[in-house]
Amino acid sequence: MARDPKLSLIPLGGLGEIGKNMMAVRFGENILVIDCGLMFPEEEMLGIDIVIPDITYLLDNRELVRGIVLTHGHEDHIGALPYVLRQLNVPVYGTRLTLGLLQGKLKERNVDAALNSVKPRDIVQIGPFRVEFIKVSHSIPDAVAIAVHTPVGVIIYTGDFKFDQTPVDGQVTDFHRLAQLGDKGVLVLLSDSTNAEIPGYTLSERMVGNTFDETFRQATERIIIATFASNVHRLQQAIQVAHRQNRKVAVVGRSMVNVVSVAYELGYLHIPENTMVELDEANRLPRHKVVILTTGSQGEPMSALTRIALSDHKQVDIVPGDTVIISATPIPGNEKVVARIIDQLFKQGAYVIYESASSIHVSGHPCQEDLKMMINLVRPKFFVPVHGEYRMLIKHAELAKEVGVLPGNVFVAENGQVLEFTRRAGRINGKVTAGKVLVDGLGVGDVGNIVLRDRKQLSQDGILIVVVTINREAGLIVAGPDIVSRGFVYVRESEELLEEARIKVRNALDICTERGVSEWSAIKSQVREVLGKFLYEKTRRRPMILPIIMEV
Amino acid sequence: MARDPKLSLIPLGGLGEIGKNMMAVRFGENILVIDCGLMFPEEEMLGIDIVIPDITYLLDNRELVRGIVLTHGHEDHIGALPYVLRQLNVPVYGTRLTLGLLQGKLKERNVDAALNSVKPRDIVQIGPFRVEFIKVSHSIPDAVAIAVHTPVGVIIYTGDFKFDQTPVDGQVTDFHRLAQLGDKGVLVLLSDSTNAEIPGYTLSERMVGNTFDETFRQATERIIIATFASNVHRLQQAIQVAHRQNRKVAVVGRSMVNVVSVAYELGYLHIPENTMVELDEANRLPRHKVVILTTGSQGEPMSALTRIALSDHKQVDIVPGDTVIISATPIPGNEKVVARIIDQLFKQGAYVIYESASSIHVSGHPCQEDLKMMINLVRPKFFVPVHGEYRMLIKHAELAKEVGVLPGNVFVAENGQVLEFTRRAGRINGKVTAGKVLVDGLGVGDVGNIVLRDRKQLSQDGILIVVVTINREAGLIVAGPDIVSRGFVYVRESEELLEEARIKVRNALDICTERGVSEWSAIKSQVREVLGKFLYEKTRRRPMILPIIMEV
Repeated sequence: MARDPKLSLIPLGGLGEIGKNMMAVRFGENILVIDCGLMFPEEEMLGIDIVIPDITYLLDNRELVRGIVLTHGHEDHIGALPYVLRQLNVPVYGTRLTLGLLQGKLKERNVDAALNSVKPRDIVQIGPFRVEFIKVSHSIPDAVAIAVHTPVGVIIYTGDFKFDQTPVDGQVTDFHRLAQLGDKGVLVLLSDSTNAEIPGYTLSERMVGNTFDETFRQATERIIIATFASNVHRLQQAIQVAHRQNRKVAVVGRSMVNVVSVAYELGYLHIPENTMVELDEANRLPRHKVVILTTGSQGEPMSALTRIALSDHKQVDIVPGDTVIISATPIPGNEKVVARIIDQLFKQGAYVIYESASSIHVSGHPCQEDLKMMINLVRPKFFVPVHGEYRMLIKHAELAKEVGVLPGNVFVAENGQVLEFTRRAGRINGKVTAGKVLVDGLGVGDVGNIVLRDRKQLSQDGILIVVVTINREAGLIVAGPDIVSRGFVYVRESEELLEEARIKVRNALDICTERGVSEWSAIKSQVREVLGKFLYEKTRRRPMILPIIMEV
Repeated sequence: MARDPKLSLIPLGGLGEIGKNMMAVRFGENILVIDCGLMFPEEEMLGIDIVIPDITYLLDNRELVRGIVLTHGHEDHIGALPYVLRQLNVPVYGTRLTLGLLQGKLKERNVDAALNSVKPRDIVQIGPFRVEFIKVSHSIPDAVAIAVHTPVGVIIYTGDFKFDQTPVDGQVTDFHRLAQLGDKGVLVLLSDSTNAEIPGYTLSERMVGNTFDETFRQATERIIIATFASNVHRLQQAIQVAHRQNRKVAVVGRSMVNVVSVAYELGYLHIPENTMVELDEANRLPRHKVVILTTGSQGEPMSALTRIALSDHKQVDIVPGDTVIISATPIPGNEKVVARIIDQLFKQGAYVIYESASSIHVSGHPCQEDLKMMINLVRPKFFVPVHGEYRMLIKHAELAKEVGVLPGNVFVAENGQVLEFTRRAGRINGKVTAGKVLVDGLGVGDVGNIVLRDRKQLSQDGILIVVVTINREAGLIVAGPDIVSRGFVYVRESEELLEEARIKVRNALDICTERGVSEWSAIKSQVREVLGKFLYEKTRRRPMILPIIMEV
């Protein structure tokens, strides 16, 4: 009797974190990759622009990788592709809007790729995998869950989803197909844990439209709406309400302009005639006839809303009586910067609507009751919570057990762990390389822990550079020691301190000379020690100390 | 007829910000100061330890300052005193616990001060001011509002407060006195805006006790509770529940140990016999017999809870099955670090209770309905929202208008603005110096914008130092140029880049020599420009470039 065939699921990102979602599905000598997202840097990753998954495992097995399938067009699901496709040029599959958004990113970075467009209910054969795309609701149109039919069983990967019973485009989640698959038997469900900590149900996007309607009615001057550029359904609702209330709409912010144009061209955004205007035209209209859609709902420093709030935008200003709607909740970590934007807008006399309590935003992710519903529909044998920080995965795992998945069949895994399944059994079996690759400017992976540790120290107490020129043969200091500091103290008020420090260094060097210490490394560490101690006593600070010895 | 006498209120901190609360009350040649708090640094204040108010105005009028009165013992109301009293030694008035906590801080920093203990309903004559202390509930015992009886009228400054109908110590807010004063006529009310954005009522501290009770019942192993050290009533409830359920209590964390001892000695904390144990004794008891109270509910890096979560605490470890209760909500800005602690605790197998939904924490500040109640009780002629960021002040001002304060009598002010009142009228009349003084180690005010801007740049892309030794007479480079970098790239993998950079610099220097450029500043700016451009092209990063020229 042959051994039971085995299927491996290997998360390369998105477990224990929010972002850089990526999952490898391996059967024999074939690997299918689902999603390829980026993550925004954590606070301690100083100077880093974005974070992408470490794909060493895929590069080590490059001849096995059959393709990458995408669930939707958000950065945390497609944003690493411009980097990954350069190293691993395989076919990519996704829905039209997803590929439309991806194309722009690839073009910007001159990356070529074979993009294959799919529709919900399409089934594509990729190596030994029959890959099926299943319509789900989310905060971007054209989102799909993915079912992978393998010789071992069916895997369902939800991607990001919500159950919206009244979606703006009228196309509800394909409950029927999920139910059908659940009925036939699903081996593993991998489901979105983003909101696993939140009780209840996620509200319909339609709610926000109602709030827009009310708010627009009460607004007497200009309305500015900040939201996520990719939330096409929300833009759609804003445009419709504006049209009904005889306001013209202008769009501000590069990514917003881009998404509106892609979504409009592909037919995902419907614009009533004579509704959209250019910004300069909008500026000539009476203020109560205008709605401006803009980016910057997360307080991004260079975004249109931030510049508007700081009176720093060339074309858009705030006049007392304007209404600003921030139709988003701050992503964890952005709370303070968003609050500051709101304060600034209030100071300029705007009426700012921002509370989550005001139904001005709804989540694109499923809450606890929705998550249970998904598990009940699909009735998987095994369950793996994905897309979430550790505590969210834990909560989601608890929910799965509550609705009847056997406790031993629920796996809370980490990036890189190999989840191995047969038709009957599942286990965690080993680990592959997985982790974070930091992107800083053009550098991909050239900033590591040492550089970050240095940036941290520099950021806290600055740096003192001690330069001295030595004539080695004569054993003489011929210039210096000079001390230059940056980020340590305000120099003009600390001349005395720095002069004292210079004398300390001079003495340390003299002692080295007297004792015949001539190893540069020994001299440097002596300078570091003497100066570090002196400065800590005087200031209770620990700047980086960098001795540089020049030899003539 | 004499001119109407005038009273000025001058906020020196706490308006447009959370923290460093400080208010000057001036009548003629007399100044009374209410509170003297610190603030924790904003994210962009790299390396800063704390922020205190700029008291230039008080120092310029030092002979007029009659005393400082305190509302309660939280850092944002007393934390700047050790710094301020050094420059301005005036009598301080506060309740027993407030002074008890202050005393420790003053002793630590060797500051002497005349501390005068008061009780609720006490009236103290300070210069021309009759200062009355009025009991309020808050998340620390012995909190008071302050009524200042002046020749112009009565000012009421609420301090931080909540309306707790069932306070743990049984002593409710002195509604009667507030009502009495309101009945007689109050000129100005200054009230706490911290929760002005939150609808409804703040729940009683007693709620948390009930949650402790339930949670303790369900816990099978050790219980660890992290909360604010100063929340003595919460500690009291934890101790009582532990006692009832036959668990012993140990305290971990320097500030928690300190508060427990001060509060116990002063009689604010009641400890049943045989309830408290030392930590090493707790470690010898069965796990289900132990409760540990600890600091670190805000994810502070050096706190006990953080070290416990990272398995880095010498005496306390987590064993699967332990219960950890985080009885606090993260202060804005701390969300991510607290989330990470929770993740770590889950990874160690603890059952972590942390949601605000779980009634494991209630606020110490009044929500919108409580705020309206305060205004209705006091019925002030003029209203000034204090203690809050700008949008909170705006909301609070709206609430005041809703309950009938005349719109023209509500003042949303900024730190330093002079609010001038007669018996009949109020207006903003001028501005005095006010602002932030940054404390970094032993340095008070020696880190300013230039230093912070340097730290920011250093933190983002690091630094390159270019050193060259020149024989000026001969016009020759005798050593270097050498390039040393920190926080820029991982040097070993970028040797080529740095060597190329060195050649660029060498060429730039040669050109200077050829052209007879001998001004050091011109040479330096040439090096900065050439190198900066080269590095940006190659890496899209802008490190700080620091040319140092040595002369022999």
